[in-house]
Amino acid sequence: MRVFGIDCGTEFTGYGVVEVDRDARMPRLVHCAAGTIRLNKKQTTPQRLAQVYAELTGLMALHAPEVVAIEEVFFSANAKSALKLGQVRGVAMLAAATSGLTVVEYAPLSIKSAVVGYGLAAKEQVQFMVTRLLELSEAPESPDAADALAIAICHIHTAQTLQMQGARR
Amino acid sequence: MRVFGIDCGTEFTGYGVVEVDRDARMPRLVHCAAGTIRLNKKQTTPQRLAQVYAELTGLMALHAPEVVAIEEVFFSANAKSALKLGQVRGVAMLAAATSGLTVVEYAPLSIKSAVVGYGLAAKEQVQFMVTRLLELSEAPESPDAADALAIAICHIHTAQTLQMQGARR
Repeated sequence: MRVFGIDCGTEFTGYGVVEVDRDARMPRLVHCAAGTIRLNKKQTTPQRLAQVYAELTGLMALHAPEVVAIEEVFFSANAKSALKLGQVRGVAMLAAATSGLTVVEYAPLSIKSAVVGYGLAAKEQVQFMVTRLLELSEAPESPDAADALAIAICHIHTAQTLQMQGARR
Repeated sequence: MRVFGIDCGTEFTGYGVVEVDRDARMPRLVHCAAGTIRLNKKQTTPQRLAQVYAELTGLMALHAPEVVAIEEVFFSANAKSALKLGQVRGVAMLAAATSGLTVVEYAPLSIKSAVVGYGLAAKEQVQFMVTRLLELSEAPESPDAADALAIAICHIHTAQTLQMQGARR
């Protein structure tokens, strides 16, 4: 299974592609790609959204994931920033839909729990654990890329747990 | 000038296309099209966003407007509904961008002022005035379609005012 994780943001949108190697004796997480889509503040919002859409669509075609995982949004932010984030999120979900991919959503607590084992973990702990779990030689290029990888890992863990529960029945 | 107005909503998104006939002695507003994109609540959010995107892109290709006008969002709503509205709005702006069209935004107060002459006008007054200004035989099919037409009319009025101011200088 190959998962495309997205961490949406109005300035930086992280992405991370993680695969689970089922042929290995112990299922092993494999890092395929990660990066950051950086938006130019001088561009108009429609131009920035078009950039996010084009880059995500291209990356999905390139990495051919089976599913797209995205973070559910925390509603502590104010309405204005929620609207702006929603615009990017809408375009990210559209990119998945037009690429024929299913979108799964995970709450921030679930993502941190899956990666660090603690729902209120700090950003640095997430980066550290992502680097370790994926056996990377250095931390992902940005906190956004690390978060996107964490979202992908969360989906893999959740899918494995569901599979194990199914096998036990 | 032909303007494509959009009134974004998480359930119903209205659109309205208005043209200004400059050949007439007095510039006259001409109603070209209006309608409502109704989303199916049983579908997933990505599927609904894909529907909005496909319908808007098709309508923009069909009506070939020169500009897309959209309402600026009122921030009285809570963050959760702002995020959901933002998702639709992001996809609407993306449809304009991928169709090669510029997006202009107007505040609700400006739209109502342009159409009714009063910024705090009720929804019914907007519908009534849109029907009258466009010389329609009956009110637009939905309040959302009426609002979209109002947004398009607001842009035409604003563009005319700017043009007149320019001519005076």
